[in-house]
Amino acid sequence: MTDRIVMSLEEVDALVRHALEANGASPVQARAVARIVTMAERDICESHGLFRVPGYVASLRSGKVDGKAVPVLSQPAPSVIAVDAKKGFAPLALETGLGPLADLAHETGVAALAVRRCHHFAALWPEVETLAEAGLVGLAVTAATPMVAPAGGTRPLYGTNPVAFAFPRDDQPPMAFDMASAAMARGDIMIHAREAEPVPEGVGIGPDGAPTTDPAAVLAGAQLPFGGYKGAAIALMVELLAGAVIGDLFSFEAGRGLKDGGPPEGGEFVLALDPARFGHGRDWVARAETLFAEIAAIEGTRLPGDRRIANRAKTARDGITAKAPLLAEIRSLAGEPT
Amino acid sequence: MTDRIVMSLEEVDALVRHALEANGASPVQARAVARIVTMAERDICESHGLFRVPGYVASLRSGKVDGKAVPVLSQPAPSVIAVDAKKGFAPLALETGLGPLADLAHETGVAALAVRRCHHFAALWPEVETLAEAGLVGLAVTAATPMVAPAGGTRPLYGTNPVAFAFPRDDQPPMAFDMASAAMARGDIMIHAREAEPVPEGVGIGPDGAPTTDPAAVLAGAQLPFGGYKGAAIALMVELLAGAVIGDLFSFEAGRGLKDGGPPEGGEFVLALDPARFGHGRDWVARAETLFAEIAAIEGTRLPGDRRIANRAKTARDGITAKAPLLAEIRSLAGEPT
Repeated sequence: MTDRIVMSLEEVDALVRHALEANGASPVQARAVARIVTMAERDICESHGLFRVPGYVASLRSGKVDGKAVPVLSQPAPSVIAVDAKKGFAPLALETGLGPLADLAHETGVAALAVRRCHHFAALWPEVETLAEAGLVGLAVTAATPMVAPAGGTRPLYGTNPVAFAFPRDDQPPMAFDMASAAMARGDIMIHAREAEPVPEGVGIGPDGAPTTDPAAVLAGAQLPFGGYKGAAIALMVELLAGAVIGDLFSFEAGRGLKDGGPPEGGEFVLALDPARFGHGRDWVARAETLFAEIAAIEGTRLPGDRRIANRAKTARDGITAKAPLLAEIRSLAGEPT
Repeated sequence: MTDRIVMSLEEVDALVRHALEANGASPVQARAVARIVTMAERDICESHGLFRVPGYVASLRSGKVDGKAVPVLSQPAPSVIAVDAKKGFAPLALETGLGPLADLAHETGVAALAVRRCHHFAALWPEVETLAEAGLVGLAVTAATPMVAPAGGTRPLYGTNPVAFAFPRDDQPPMAFDMASAAMARGDIMIHAREAEPVPEGVGIGPDGAPTTDPAAVLAGAQLPFGGYKGAAIALMVELLAGAVIGDLFSFEAGRGLKDGGPPEGGEFVLALDPARFGHGRDWVARAETLFAEIAAIEGTRLPGDRRIANRAKTARDGITAKAPLLAEIRSLAGEPT
């Protein structure tokens, strides 16, 4: 097993900011990315944590991402907020749009946020959790580069096309899930490949179109959607929302871009709902708790996101552990002594 | 094989209206249900067609459904339409709300419709197709009675909790999918049970919690979500949207109601988006066509709903075929000579 180094969350945050700023990102862009990476490490979501930093840096070095971009906010319709990320990273564009989106949803009952021309390389649960912490129900989807075969197909067309959803809870963090419409998240397959561990059957096919459990073959071939044609329908819906609806690229178009290992260009669709504006006068958060209690009463079940929330107590106390070679690589990218 | 009787779509519509009116439904309630049943037969979606009529009638005879209910429309927030179905059937309540929802979405960019206190027994693609025909993107979800086990669980809690989505197309019917978050639609399992045909593995578990391919055992035990815990997360999201958000029952609550074989009481959440109001100025329908063309270019693929659309040409020309015993039963319920 690779050596692991203990770090505090503050050290993670500072290192990521430093690595990005040292490679041309503005302090605000770097801070927004560092916040998201640190949240992933806090929740022990390794595949969206420090693991992504070399990719962020590569996209700055290649010039694909504008590390100094200033997102521009607009309101094209009474219940729609748009943010042009100006080819910067997604986190700052999302921060720019989420506050206005939340205000608008509280006012109109339902509102949408279109983030365009951003470079997304993170999980989606941070944005839907942010909405849920503001007392809203949040839904977010984004496309990526072609990695997943459509139903019945033998070559990739869709991104892993995650769907994230969050719901506020009484006196505890929101219930949130964030799942790829691929059978396995690409980050997890990348980690399997790095560790030379096979992936389960049904995760993907090789470049020859035949099923395989070799993660490297899946990365070179195509991932499969979860749940067959139904997961493929979800992936298609995500492409249409994050592509055609908001006016940004489909995965197959983003795949034509520069190959630097960093985040592709694309958009994100976010929806916010305020159930208090639906006219029923019910305590909707308490209502949801009755459902959560019914789920908990069935043996063997747990709510989505429970593990992440439990991890927070652990990392707040003990810090996180980073793999030594990855940490050395990031320090080197930051121009720090390794 | 059971004898089948050829009927025109007009004959289907008239028979359903007659069966419902003969059992106390108002002409407008009967007409709205008949329209939906006839659309299902038109598309050869047998499990939501005439097959459902005995259940509709049973719920009128038991007094559970108010066949003369007049839905009441309101607008609780600037982007939210609510319809109180007053314990009538869903189709008339949906008809009442869909026009105002479409108008609102064109005005504000995104709008939601909450249909409450209805009895739903139909597919959801008719409502999302209606929105797509009005030039909008439509999403609809509804819960039901407990039939599906949550992730890891061994007894039912969720309904089959369908998700329907539709997107307009150039010069042809909308692309629409409508899929249960259960591995198999309950109507299909009911048809398998009636025909004594086994269901595939992964569709459900028996009353003992053990996997089975016996459709009757699955109906008595629990269905399973599609795609494991990811499909279960979709089912949970549907419960929260169609229950807590809009202010109606969860499946486990609706399951406590009268058992007459008819539609349960519950609500439906519908979302409409107007991509033309998202400020990008792109021809979003044409953009989607480029994605559909990419999908079509991959061998082995087809778009969701293609088969239904193809069936329309066939049934418009040849009519539909109904099973003789079912037809006799419905005629008997209608007080017609069988």
